[in-house]
Amino acid sequence: QGQTQSQEVQIYMDYNATTPPEPEVIKAVTEALQEAWGNPSSNYIAGAKAKAIINHSRENVARMVGGKAEDIIFTSGGTEANNLVLHTAVEHFRKNCRAAEQGEAHSNGCTGLPHIIISNVEHDSVRLVAEHLQRDGKADVTSVPVSKTTARVEVEDVIAAVRPNTCLISCHAEICQRIKSLNKQHERLRILLHTDAAQALGKIRVDACELGVDYLTIVGHKFYAPRIGALYVNGPGTRTPLYPMLFGGGQERNFRPGYTENTPMIAGLGKAAELVTSNLSDYESHMRSTKLYLEERLRAVFKDRIRFNSHYPGSDNLPNTCNVSILGPTLQGWRVLSNCRRLLASVGAACHSGSGNRPSHILLSCGVPSEVAANALRLSVGRGTTKEDVDIVVEDLRETVQLLEEMN
Amino acid sequence: QGQTQSQEVQIYMDYNATTPPEPEVIKAVTEALQEAWGNPSSNYIAGAKAKAIINHSRENVARMVGGKAEDIIFTSGGTEANNLVLHTAVEHFRKNCRAAEQGEAHSNGCTGLPHIIISNVEHDSVRLVAEHLQRDGKADVTSVPVSKTTARVEVEDVIAAVRPNTCLISCHAEICQRIKSLNKQHERLRILLHTDAAQALGKIRVDACELGVDYLTIVGHKFYAPRIGALYVNGPGTRTPLYPMLFGGGQERNFRPGYTENTPMIAGLGKAAELVTSNLSDYESHMRSTKLYLEERLRAVFKDRIRFNSHYPGSDNLPNTCNVSILGPTLQGWRVLSNCRRLLASVGAACHSGSGNRPSHILLSCGVPSEVAANALRLSVGRGTTKEDVDIVVEDLRETVQLLEEMN
Repeated sequence: QGQTQSQEVQIYMDYNATTPPEPEVIKAVTEALQEAWGNPSSNYIAGAKAKAIINHSRENVARMVGGKAEDIIFTSGGTEANNLVLHTAVEHFRKNCRAAEQGEAHSNGCTGLPHIIISNVEHDSVRLVAEHLQRDGKADVTSVPVSKTTARVEVEDVIAAVRPNTCLISCHAEICQRIKSLNKQHERLRILLHTDAAQALGKIRVDACELGVDYLTIVGHKFYAPRIGALYVNGPGTRTPLYPMLFGGGQERNFRPGYTENTPMIAGLGKAAELVTSNLSDYESHMRSTKLYLEERLRAVFKDRIRFNSHYPGSDNLPNTCNVSILGPTLQGWRVLSNCRRLLASVGAACHSGSGNRPSHILLSCGVPSEVAANALRLSVGRGTTKEDVDIVVEDLRETVQLLEEMN
Repeated sequence: QGQTQSQEVQIYMDYNATTPPEPEVIKAVTEALQEAWGNPSSNYIAGAKAKAIINHSRENVARMVGGKAEDIIFTSGGTEANNLVLHTAVEHFRKNCRAAEQGEAHSNGCTGLPHIIISNVEHDSVRLVAEHLQRDGKADVTSVPVSKTTARVEVEDVIAAVRPNTCLISCHAEICQRIKSLNKQHERLRILLHTDAAQALGKIRVDACELGVDYLTIVGHKFYAPRIGALYVNGPGTRTPLYPMLFGGGQERNFRPGYTENTPMIAGLGKAAELVTSNLSDYESHMRSTKLYLEERLRAVFKDRIRFNSHYPGSDNLPNTCNVSILGPTLQGWRVLSNCRRLLASVGAACHSGSGNRPSHILLSCGVPSEVAANALRLSVGRGTTKEDVDIVVEDLRETVQLLEEMN
């Protein structure tokens, strides 16, 4: 009976989809719900406590990304933060051009539509916004494909895509660092740089200043915080433009008004950020060694039938993610996962299940052959994943593969 | 010493600004943080639990406003919900006109800009959006003043403001019910009706169908829920248009995508809505009798120096709100409140303190003389406010007034 019970324990290896809030984070949320429910804009003490919590959280979130407290704008999540960046870029271009028409600014680049560059592996909340702007006749968009040999966007390809009217480049962190020099050409419209750090935060070191980005998207639930986000902006409204999408009661210095700040969620985000700042190297080394052990066990069990889809020369992989395919005509990712008794994971790199059973467009973009991409499993380990968990998962996969091949 | 301690207990009478989440609501949030942190879009069980919670909450929120589950779109709050309505109205007008140009629709009203009617006492998250649209050349806006004798918008004034290109009327609930017949004139562009029910929900009965509104804004933290909101839409995307402001991972049927649904906050909103549906008449009668007692005590103590700013013939006051001025040259609302030792309240009807010490523009709009409006206190009682609390507050006000007059 003990065995039956232990067989029922499921092992979560989908930490890239979402993470469980840390107990300290839950405590911060609950305490704020109980004790800091006052309106932070109120003059009396109940509001003052909420305000203090929000300020403290803002400092903690800023510290996590190497920014200043005033650079942090809380948003409802990553989707809103990403939308806000693209919206701002288009508005900024428009206002610049209007000023240029009136002789108040340089007219460089102010012909036609604003031009936005993204990579072809961006999250939907960047990609679909860009497509919407293009469809609506509000922007031109270039989607730079990742290199099929390095599985990442190449600096040269991004630079080649730049036009006189390029106003925003949204791409992965490493690239930002290498293209920030683009803006040294002072005679042209400044190109705003954005990176969606949703998957990087809490796993690897992220420093907005070193990266040289103007905007950096922060998504709480990817680093054991609640479902709330923030946008780092390098000097919002001063050094870097920020145009609100919403209008209302003046919260977040009018950049992101809401009737009343979401104190409890902000408290949770701040606590989670504090944990990341304090413990990142421990988290990172634990996840990295767990992932290496997972890869080692998978190789030992599946031998030459295993393909690691993120092993490309030069790519900076996340320390916790193992994107793997077990070769075989009946071993499609969705089929394997739906037959696993203990492993909980996703197929490919998508935050949502809408795309069904098709192979990940990101893997295909990276040059993974379609029969390999179809079998992909994204196994992402977390802060608490143990070697025992790994053993259970690999054994579960072994049994599942055997079952699926016998069924055939 | 006992007396000193009891003197330090503060009495919160600002329930219109925000409310403390109910213990059952906090429990629902905390449990979801602990047990339903999975991605609701995931195929495995952790996600399924989150999905079930969200569905259940959606039903509870719908029931509270007399709608169907599919009519509820969760948003980050009331500000976002209100912005979404105005955005939709403008987009809808634009698409209709484009279709008319192409001969696919009636061209009635499709000349010039979309026209929006609001009252002059709307919340900033309606008023400022309208002003922004107008400033940006995207809409014409008429702000209908409330009548100085009834302190509310008159049906005739709204009807007189309607133009052929009017696409949206956003105003208080009672008016919606009386102007819905406007849309019986089938030859014209349909006028969408919106009401911001932020202050009404949890205090009086609200039924979207009876009101005949197309959109109704729901704000959690006004009825003992957490800081999250929802928009009721009468058949979103089918009977009633809804154009998203954000683009992303497909959540909320693409009407309001977010990386991942905010399960814990949604759980709390659902629980709070369930409490409202079950207990509204108790809440309402308790608040009404407490407010009546408060008015009675204020009259007894301050006699002819008291003015109730919401006592207009025919106005449907909220059962919990007592907007009151104590007459006297040194008794400005902010001054009284900052000298009260126990009472926590706001001056006038504003959700935020940004407007400083100026008298409420809403009171001035309602015809309250400026020297009376300057002294206004908005005392709003809650589900748990007792007669003892009222006694303490009135005594506190008596002492404060005495102090301020002696100081002079």
